[in-house]
Amino acid sequence: MSVSIKSRVARSTKKPLVRGEPIVSTVLETTLRELARVGYRALRFEDVATLAKVNKTTIYRRWPTKSDLVRAAIACKKSESFKNSPDTGSLRTDFLALGSAFSTAVSQPEGQSLVRMFMMESADPEVADLHKSLRDEHQALPKAMIARAVERGELARGEDHMVLFEAFIGALHHKVFMMQESVSEAFLARLVEILLLGVLEPAARPRRASRPANGAHGRA
Amino acid sequence: MSVSIKSRVARSTKKPLVRGEPIVSTVLETTLRELARVGYRALRFEDVATLAKVNKTTIYRRWPTKSDLVRAAIACKKSESFKNSPDTGSLRTDFLALGSAFSTAVSQPEGQSLVRMFMMESADPEVADLHKSLRDEHQALPKAMIARAVERGELARGEDHMVLFEAFIGALHHKVFMMQESVSEAFLARLVEILLLGVLEPAARPRRASRPANGAHGRA
Repeated sequence: MSVSIKSRVARSTKKPLVRGEPIVSTVLETTLRELARVGYRALRFEDVATLAKVNKTTIYRRWPTKSDLVRAAIACKKSESFKNSPDTGSLRTDFLALGSAFSTAVSQPEGQSLVRMFMMESADPEVADLHKSLRDEHQALPKAMIARAVERGELARGEDHMVLFEAFIGALHHKVFMMQESVSEAFLARLVEILLLGVLEPAARPRRASRPANGAHGRA
Repeated sequence: MSVSIKSRVARSTKKPLVRGEPIVSTVLETTLRELARVGYRALRFEDVATLAKVNKTTIYRRWPTKSDLVRAAIACKKSESFKNSPDTGSLRTDFLALGSAFSTAVSQPEGQSLVRMFMMESADPEVADLHKSLRDEHQALPKAMIARAVERGELARGEDHMVLFEAFIGALHHKVFMMQESVSEAFLARLVEILLLGVLEPAARPRRASRPANGAHGRA
């Protein structure tokens, strides 16, 4: 078997596969479809190769492990939906844009399969590693959004605002994956309003939250 | 096989099985453990009967369908964690109590398996039906919490506040099932603070949100 594969691989091939080449996108799209169908554990290079109509060695040469292959497939997909964090001039409209992009991404089977894979197969150490490294990459997007909101004076400086993003993404995931409902514009608008302004009636708020706009109350 | 089962079942048994009897809780606990292990689709009366050391007919007699059995198992489990909605005197402390109960429930394998089942097996019409009816039951709890908060003047009267709960539960699910982290007291406190008061700095808020406590601004 390994002899037959070797005989079919031109050892002198100089041209590396680069992203954007048709064969690369075919392999990565096939990987996502297979991932959606069978999950991480059951995903096999052989099947991706057969479905993408390429030699298995062509895949191994560029992505030596299953983790490499899946990571590349996810990165390729992600770059379409979330290449940059939205920069619309306010935290509210940034959130609305991010929510729309999320809604589009998870309306596709590949997007849904990724979320399900991370939830279901997290006991697999490779999936857990993959998830952790993707999470670290993903945090670049909210961090850029937060930094701009801090610059605009919308968010307090020097505080950790990641819980805000976890609540936002968590609410969207819950809507789609637990409630099995789509994210409507009305839901998204109300969610963002709650996160930015809170639900408590003014009379029920502690005084700090209703201090006048020009009162710095000693904060630097 | 069916003859052998019939021969072991006393047809004249008058005493019905009631909740709380040891055999009932054994069967329901076994059902939850099996559900955690194999999921809904693969769950079998035979296996539950064998593991619980009861006759299969004993189970069928009380819970004629798999859906009945699973619903009863979930109801039994749920009643331990979320029998009543917390009533602590404020929306903030009600949320903190609810968050703690959630955190305890999902730290157990059975609790995790339920969430995963609803996420993964929602394509199964029986699971979808089960989920829908449980959701309707579940909404009684937030509705009671909301009604009390409206009475106390913490939430606006006549508005739909369910998005608030979806954001709360969604953020907790995300923390546990996507981030694979436990719900710390600090995370829970910050989440509740965001939902109740919002994150926007006072200067960035629209005037309506920072109106003084005694100004009704014409609202009835």
